[in-house]
Amino acid sequence: MNIEKINDLKKWMEKENIELAYISQPQSIAYFTGYESDPHERVLALFIALEKDPFLFAPALEVEAAAKSAWAYDVVGYLDTENPWKVIHQEIITRYGEPKNFALEKNALSLDRFELLASYFEQTHFKADITSVIQNMQLIKTDSEIQGLIEAGSWADIAFEIGFSTIGPGVTEQEIVAQIEYELKKKGVSKMSFDTMVLTGSRAADPHGNPGNTIIQENQFVLFDLGVVWNGYCSDATRTVAYQTPSDFQKEIYQIVLEAQLTAQDTVKPGITAGELDAVARKVIDDAGYGPYFNHRLGHGIGTSVHEYPSIVAGNDLVLEEGMCFSIEPGIYLPNQVGVRIEDCVYVTKNGSQSFTKTSKELKIIG
Amino acid sequence: MNIEKINDLKKWMEKENIELAYISQPQSIAYFTGYESDPHERVLALFIALEKDPFLFAPALEVEAAAKSAWAYDVVGYLDTENPWKVIHQEIITRYGEPKNFALEKNALSLDRFELLASYFEQTHFKADITSVIQNMQLIKTDSEIQGLIEAGSWADIAFEIGFSTIGPGVTEQEIVAQIEYELKKKGVSKMSFDTMVLTGSRAADPHGNPGNTIIQENQFVLFDLGVVWNGYCSDATRTVAYQTPSDFQKEIYQIVLEAQLTAQDTVKPGITAGELDAVARKVIDDAGYGPYFNHRLGHGIGTSVHEYPSIVAGNDLVLEEGMCFSIEPGIYLPNQVGVRIEDCVYVTKNGSQSFTKTSKELKIIG
Repeated sequence: MNIEKINDLKKWMEKENIELAYISQPQSIAYFTGYESDPHERVLALFIALEKDPFLFAPALEVEAAAKSAWAYDVVGYLDTENPWKVIHQEIITRYGEPKNFALEKNALSLDRFELLASYFEQTHFKADITSVIQNMQLIKTDSEIQGLIEAGSWADIAFEIGFSTIGPGVTEQEIVAQIEYELKKKGVSKMSFDTMVLTGSRAADPHGNPGNTIIQENQFVLFDLGVVWNGYCSDATRTVAYQTPSDFQKEIYQIVLEAQLTAQDTVKPGITAGELDAVARKVIDDAGYGPYFNHRLGHGIGTSVHEYPSIVAGNDLVLEEGMCFSIEPGIYLPNQVGVRIEDCVYVTKNGSQSFTKTSKELKIIG
Repeated sequence: MNIEKINDLKKWMEKENIELAYISQPQSIAYFTGYESDPHERVLALFIALEKDPFLFAPALEVEAAAKSAWAYDVVGYLDTENPWKVIHQEIITRYGEPKNFALEKNALSLDRFELLASYFEQTHFKADITSVIQNMQLIKTDSEIQGLIEAGSWADIAFEIGFSTIGPGVTEQEIVAQIEYELKKKGVSKMSFDTMVLTGSRAADPHGNPGNTIIQENQFVLFDLGVVWNGYCSDATRTVAYQTPSDFQKEIYQIVLEAQLTAQDTVKPGITAGELDAVARKVIDDAGYGPYFNHRLGHGIGTSVHEYPSIVAGNDLVLEEGMCFSIEPGIYLPNQVGVRIEDCVYVTKNGSQSFTKTSKELKIIG
């Protein structure tokens, strides 16, 4: 349970004149309560009141586990046969009275749920959105959070090692994925932070492609994008390696992406903006003539979720500060030809940055 | 692309006097367009207009893949640096003019996105929710959909076989998970439908527990809850087996759950309601004195998503019809003692039901 962060949230509520906040994103709930759960379509909710004790609202079948967790306040359960909004309304009225200003985590509350909730609170205002308040709280990581991310990152390095050593004649993308996840799970990693991506040849030119039964092609690149969840912290990293001899053209594309990645990573330090950092990497690729083929932002924040603040994107004036953590992942995707992406996640230090993943980024040629 | 279902949706729109519908759930988009994608925090949206051609709206980095997919209409892309809501507004105004009644998939649209969208359409009404329209469309499965579910189910049977054969002295829950997923992935299954659950002893008394480094305990149950996604269709099944000799008490609990499961499965036929079916299973467990320890609904629908309509829950008056597909999964969870759940997903036939999974439900004793 993170009582300090709950108090930070209350300070914000006081300033904004808000009596009650409803936190709905499971990762945010885990962040404040220490109780991790994926409630699927059931309702899991954390209610934080300005003046009184908070309570956690959970499906009946989770109450036992939630009560056993680090969460020290009440857990209120509801059965599948009950209307959760009616139970929530009764609990809130009994505990706190009718709130005038009720803040919501609007990026993690579906419109139908909002309409159901609001139907019980006719006199209440729901203007305030706490999404960015919570995301900003998580923007600057503490030393222990960074330690968690370092450990998660080192599992990504192990995953690359397994993946690279699995490449060989006749092996499919999907078999490499299976091998990576199997060995990690045997070592105790229970969850990948997203579906492991292994793509060969021109298939890597689709930045969101899915691994399949395609056999690793000779004299082509293989792109690995992967990460794990370890003690609640995520890793995310990408390497592109060559299977047998790459062409000069492939090597040229690789070197441009590598230069963009290294230049950006060297540029990171407190004081520059997220938009400026994106521009630094983009300039390298633009200057080489491949600007249109780098069709996504440079990076995204990482922490207890694999995509969070800050967004490293053109136009974002957010000033980078010590303790912020994000990916730097330029790519060039030439449809039906070649795809290269190189990604490390880093944390901002006093004068620069440190990477969570250590696997070499020089072009590696396998087999 | 499912043009028939798009036309069904248009018929509903015409009846309800709705000019435009916004479909936001990736699975629903896949259902109508044939284009499967997880856009993460980016915006993927399908707009279906009553009078004109629909269009798919996608992140720039997905446009290539979407255009190559079965979707035959326009794909409009946006860059990370653009405001997607502004682009969407312009596209809609240009293509269709300002809609008066705009239907939304409210269970799959976050409140913050709704507020952004609505800010561009000040004269538009957003009352209609198409969530249940789409879910009802998917409620009765066609023969080819059932065929897809049968194939997905047979992979769950293979997964049980792998899992059972992995049980042995010193093996942990997590190692069994790793082995199951490894062998399935090697055979070409690219995705589990949810995180594979293997829980031993009293740990199975938490219906949503997570596998860990716990070694399979002697003379205890091991609960397996698992499923795959195969050609877009999901499976979901649960078996509880004994590792070495179970106690008489454990066997008694098992037999009660088994009787509840079999009785419910035998009761399924067109004409009875979802609520009545839940009651049939619940009565068996109630009569045995364990009612309070069966603390969730009997089942949920299954199809292209692992949890959909119909909900097999007390109070649901939905009448079951031929072609509906859902789980039957009673359980008894005695905290710190024992947990048993047995689950098959079935499809309703003319006179009864057929199960998607065939693994025996008689108590299996291993080792």
